[in-house]
This record gives sequence, structure tokens and C-alpha cells, in this order.
Amino acid sequence: MSNQLLSTKPYKGTRDFYPDDMRLRNWFFGKIRETLETAAFDEYNGPMLESLELYAAKSGEEIATKQTYNFMDRGDRMVAIRPEMTPTVARMVAGKMNDLNFPLRWFSIPNMYRYEATQRGRLREFWQLNVDIFGCNTYEADLEIIVSAIRIMKSFGATKEMFTVRINNRRFFNDVVAAITGKDAEGSRLVSKVIDRKNKVSREAYEKDLRELGLLDEQIAKIDALYEMSVEEATALCPDSIGAGELRDLFAALRELNLDQYCKFDFGIIRGLDYYTGTVFEVFDNAPENNRAMFGGGRYDNLVGLFVKNAKVSGVGYGMGDVTLENFLVTHGLVPEVLGQKTKVLVTRFSDVPYAEYVKLTETLRNAGIAASLHLEAKKFGKQIEYAVKENYSHVVIMGGTELEAGEVKIKDLATREETAVKINELAEFFGA
Amino acid sequence: MSNQLLSTKPYKGTRDFYPDDMRLRNWFFGKIRETLETAAFDEYNGPMLESLELYAAKSGEEIATKQTYNFMDRGDRMVAIRPEMTPTVARMVAGKMNDLNFPLRWFSIPNMYRYEATQRGRLREFWQLNVDIFGCNTYEADLEIIVSAIRIMKSFGATKEMFTVRINNRRFFNDVVAAITGKDAEGSRLVSKVIDRKNKVSREAYEKDLRELGLLDEQIAKIDALYEMSVEEATALCPDSIGAGELRDLFAALRELNLDQYCKFDFGIIRGLDYYTGTVFEVFDNAPENNRAMFGGGRYDNLVGLFVKNAKVSGVGYGMGDVTLENFLVTHGLVPEVLGQKTKVLVTRFSDVPYAEYVKLTETLRNAGIAASLHLEAKKFGKQIEYAVKENYSHVVIMGGTELEAGEVKIKDLATREETAVKINELAEFFGA
Repeated sequence: MSNQLLSTKPYKGTRDFYPDDMRLRNWFFGKIRETLETAAFDEYNGPMLESLELYAAKSGEEIATKQTYNFMDRGDRMVAIRPEMTPTVARMVAGKMNDLNFPLRWFSIPNMYRYEATQRGRLREFWQLNVDIFGCNTYEADLEIIVSAIRIMKSFGATKEMFTVRINNRRFFNDVVAAITGKDAEGSRLVSKVIDRKNKVSREAYEKDLRELGLLDEQIAKIDALYEMSVEEATALCPDSIGAGELRDLFAALRELNLDQYCKFDFGIIRGLDYYTGTVFEVFDNAPENNRAMFGGGRYDNLVGLFVKNAKVSGVGYGMGDVTLENFLVTHGLVPEVLGQKTKVLVTRFSDVPYAEYVKLTETLRNAGIAASLHLEAKKFGKQIEYAVKENYSHVVIMGGTELEAGEVKIKDLATREETAVKINELAEFFGA
Repeated sequence: MSNQLLSTKPYKGTRDFYPDDMRLRNWFFGKIRETLETAAFDEYNGPMLESLELYAAKSGEEIATKQTYNFMDRGDRMVAIRPEMTPTVARMVAGKMNDLNFPLRWFSIPNMYRYEATQRGRLREFWQLNVDIFGCNTYEADLEIIVSAIRIMKSFGATKEMFTVRINNRRFFNDVVAAITGKDAEGSRLVSKVIDRKNKVSREAYEKDLRELGLLDEQIAKIDALYEMSVEEATALCPDSIGAGELRDLFAALRELNLDQYCKFDFGIIRGLDYYTGTVFEVFDNAPENNRAMFGGGRYDNLVGLFVKNAKVSGVGYGMGDVTLENFLVTHGLVPEVLGQKTKVLVTRFSDVPYAEYVKLTETLRNAGIAASLHLEAKKFGKQIEYAVKENYSHVVIMGGTELEAGEVKIKDLATREETAVKINELAEFFGA
């Protein structure tokens, strides 16, 4: 062992959660749990380590190869620290296919690791809410998923001015591209790839690529027009498309629920070409300085195909990272000033009273459900008050020898500085417990 | 990608938490959080990955070398998946030494990994409650820590028949060994090492080792007698020992609090020789078939010495694994029959009512704080009831075209099978929300 002092910094791209940080995270994940449990979603979790082949087979190439922490264990197994939750939940669903009662309404808040360059909103360790419905492949499940996302945002006090759910449908996308271009499935797929890259290349390069695939200016203009269309206008372009029907049903239900004010059809939402198969959506932060997708998701098929032969389970869901959500809540002033216990009482200590009396008093408060602690050392009163203020106690209890004999204590409210004499057997009442 | 199907088993020594498993874990960790927050402890957390040197320097040899999952990252850093929490919290405390308000009352419930042979109660991935007070080195902090452990056990309905907190003190241990043997510090240390190994060797080998260190039969008998002594008898053997004073103060306070019924002085509690420096304790399961230490802890010094020169912070605390606690709760029948939402309502669906009406009704229930969901597919009524029963819904709501027109629904209690007609605007009232 060397005498060199060790660094106190956390590992690159990870965070220490001191009590203030933890209270914030517990607060927002607590609200999310409450919202989802009220919508009858069930929480699950899985291991942090999985066999690497799970990701090599399932995830996008980049996640499996470049972004995964993986290593060989002492039994020569290649393992990975999970970079996402879907492969784990797919494995779990496949493992109990015959016992589970579909559709499943599941959520999880796992921590996960990705090996990436750290930047605002992107860390190597993060927590990610995953919400999914498995085993129902109609728009009703898509609606429940989108409603749950809106309920979560609203539970934090977010208004329609602060966020927008932008919705598209991958079946509609394919059908409308085919309708405009007149191409077959393979031809449409090539056009879709160009459209998917639209924001990553110049307008010139985009048009050139489309023209190389044989598109006319008129067809390119029709595709352009889709980005400005309402859901009614867009779906009218290929009214018989199953995807168009799903979009119409979804938006009609959102209107009935008065939730359409939070939603917008957006032909630009694609979310990669190889994974999603139906409804896709992204929740945007509307703040001008941070206007971008915070999280998103959609419908995908064949969840369990890698594990069970000839079995099909489809899913619809989304993933939301803790860093993104925290940025949103802070930016829009949605974090309450006081998190955690509002009433928290410190019993102060004087040398003329046996210590055990203070412990008893503290236990009396706790037994009444009041968050309470006591000053462990017999320091000067001023020091004890200073400790209470720094640790966000709301009240201190003062009990010297005289008070103890009279069976009462003084309670000092640290916000108002008011002192009140209270009988010991009326303490619970005083704090409204 | 091969066509071989992937295994659905989790990685060796880890567990999948399906909703029923997760409800159980959320229930017991939820109760622990509530108990500790009522005792004004603050939750913290840290990263899953740490630099390996943190463990090489701090933990016992076995944990650092044989039991740690470690590997080199792509930046040539040796990292480890945390096998325990103390090195992380030591780093965190050291990192903010001057900003933190001591004493700290901190707890955490991290997941961690140890590479070990799996057996009952020992898995490779586990969750461990860590509770500590940092920066107060007198018995008052030891008492708070032991009281918190008893409060946790009592919060689950555990009685004194089910568990015992066995307490010793390492300073007293050293002093009483010196008093009986008449040896100096180094001589006593060698005797202590033999006593520490007592349960791992035969009686003959134990006596032989002590005799080789020069102990007389009479001295060996005196040490034997300590295991049967009360705290008063034992501390009377070296009344001036600081450790003896700590033990007396601790037990006197436990008596005042009427918590001595859960506690017992036990000279056999040592907890390894190199780490603990004062009070040590272990909480035993009293069940005859499972009579053993479930968890324990104690006082240790110099938490931050590896990070900050010439700084001393002492701590006292304990760690409790989720598997051990779950075994205890199940063995003693302390897990309630219903975990999670007691009222959970499924809105059933008929083809003569527009789907959006069902979604609206479901949202009305949720907005009143009632856990509710709706059947996503228009299946036969019997199938919908079957789904509700399997998913532990307490009630189903029945609304056909006739009911909708009358502005009322039927509510079927799935336990009693009773049906009640309720006006839609009186639903919240009906469920007592």
C-alpha cells in the first residue's frame, strides 16, 4: 500500500449523490412511481450484469460494440454492464411466457452504463425510467403509453407551454412514402433511409439523394409538405393505411381526453429505421434555450424472438433518463423549495438533564411519526442551533432541568424564531401528528 | 448473428425481479426508508463503478482481490464494480470535509457485486442497506445506531422472541484480555487473534494456542467465563477501561428506553480484528432452524485517512443485505398477504360503448388517486374478469351502453363478488378516495 493519498473524485462520467442530490432524485422518481402505480403499472428490475451476447444480438451495433462496458468474468463468460433495459426485460418476459398474464403493464428505474464522451445531459452512469406495455398490438396500448407520459409531465406541474408530445407512425410513414413515390417495399425503404438522414445532411445533399432514387421535384415537394400537415391532412394521403388508421384513432382519443393540447403530429419523428414498427413519439422541451427531444419511444415487434422459437410478443414503451428530466424540471422552475420532511425536529441537550431523557423524548416524537433526532454531543446551545439550521431542521426542542420537572418543553420554530411551551404528552398534537 | 436461441436465465448469482418480487423488495426497503427518515437519517448514493485502488487500499484483502469484479476500461483505468459501500462513502465524506455538517446521519441502499460461490443467503448481486453516523466518536452515536436497527426490526412486527442484538466493545475486549493475561498491547493482540478464531478450531487446538502464548488454565477459565457474563459482571473485571464505560452507558440507556429486552452482552462478538475499534454488534435471528447473525456493524476510526492528510473522522454503522432480511421476514411470517395497492380497479370494456368513454372513466378514477386501468382489448367479459383476478385487481367496473346513458356504472368487488351500482360522479366517494 502506498502513502499516496487517493482522489476523492468519482469515476469519470458518474455522480455522487449527496443527501440534497438524493432528495431531488427520490422526489422525482417517487412522483413517477406514484403516477405509474395509479395507472396500474407494475415495477420490475433485473441484474446489472448480463451476458454480452444479449446486447450483441439485440441492440443497435453502436451500443453493443462501442458503448458497452464489457469484460470476461473468472468463469470465461463475456459479461456486460447493462447499457439499456429492453434486452433484460425481453429475456424476463421470454423466461415466463406461459405464466405471465398479458398484456403486461411494466415499468422499471434501473441504473445503467454507457461508455461515451461525457457532455451536458450525457453521463456514463445514469438512471432510466422504462415504461412498456407488452402483448397488445393495437392503438389502445399506444394511447395508454402516451397518456402515462403526459400524466408524468403534468404531475410535475408541467404545462402545454413547456412540453409537446410529437407523434408519428412508422407504418403510416412507409405507406405514405410508397403512395407518393409509387415504389415497392424495397424502393420505399431506400427513400426512407434518405428521409431519416434529412437533418444530418445539407438540403442539397438530401435532394440529390432523393433524385438519385428517381424522385421528381413534385414528389420531393409532397414529402416536404408532410412536415407541416395536421394528422387529418397527412392521413388523407393514404386513407387505407393501417398506420393512418392508428394515427386517426390515437388523435381522436387524445381529443376526447382533452390531451391533444399536449400533442402534435410530426412527420419528422422516425427514431431510427430498424427497430420501431408502429406509433413513434418524442417528448420535446419547449424552452427556447433547450428545445429538443427529452425522451421518446414507440411500438416494436418480436420482443422475445431471440429466446423463444415462433413466439411473437409486441411492445410499446419509452425510456426517460434522470439527467434529462432533472434539467427540464430545473429549467422550468418545477422543483419545490423544500424536498423531503417538512417537519423535522432536533432535540437539543443540556448538561443538567440525563442524556437518556433526551433519547426518550426523541423516541416519543418518532413513535408519533414525527421526523426527529437529537444532538449527540453536549455542545453550547448556539452550536446546537447552528447544526439544526444547517441540517434543515424545522424546529428545535429545548428541555432543561426545570422544564423536565414541569413535564413540558419549549419548541422553537426555526423559520419564525417563535418559542412555544408544550406539555410533553401533547407534543404529537402540537406537530399535528 | 447466429440462429441459436439465447438463454432466458439471468447471469449466475443474480436475480430477476418480476413484479411480485419487486413489490416485496419495495415494501421492505420502503419501510426501512420511512423508519430511518423518521429518525432524521439522510439518504445518499454513489456510482456503481469505482477506481479499483479504492478497494485495494481500504477493504479486507479477500474482498479486494478475490471477490471484486474488476476490469480495465478503455482509458486504461482499473475499475471495480463496488463490492461494498464504505469506500465510496469514505471518498464522498473526504471530498466535502469542509462543507459537511458533522455528525452526519446517512444511509444508502445500493446494489453491489461480489464474486463468490452462490449459496443460501449469498448471491453475486445483492442490495445492502448501509446506515452510519460519521463524526461523533462517543457512545451516544453507537446508541442511535443500535436503536435504529431495533426500530427497523420492530417496524416489521419482529418481537424479542424473533431476534437479539448481541453487543460487545473492542476496547473493552482488548482491556479485559490484558487484565486477565497481564500482557502488554502486542501480547494481548496475539491472544485476541486466538480468541477470534475460537469457533473455527477445536477446543483442544484453541487451548493449545493459548498455552503456547503462556496462558495458565486459570486464565483460560476466566476468558471462558466471560461468554456467560452479564454486562455488569464483565465490565467489573476492568472497571476503568473506556470500553467498559461505553458498554455500561450503552446498556443503561437501552434499559431506560426499554430496549434492553432486545439486547444482550456477548463477549463472542468480535467481527474481525483489523477494522472495528469500539462498540460492535450483530443482530441474530432466533429461529432455531436459522439461528445466526443476520447483520452487524460497529465503530471504526479514520474513515477519511486514505484521502485527506492528518484528518480523522470516525464512524459507527451497519450493513444489512436484502436476501438475509427477506429470509428472516418469510421465516417468521412477517410478510403481509397483500403488498402494494389494496384498491386497484379494472375498467372492463363492451363493444356498444366507444373506447374513449372507458379511457375517460379510467382517467377519472386515476385523477381521484385510485389505481386504475382498463382492458385494452374488447375480449369476452369472462376473459376480462380472468385477467383482473390474475393481476390482483380488487374491483372491476362494468359500463355498457345502458349504464353510460344512465350516468352510472356497476362495480364488482372481486373478493366478495358483490355488485353495486354507483353514479359516475360518486366513484371517488365509493372508493373512499
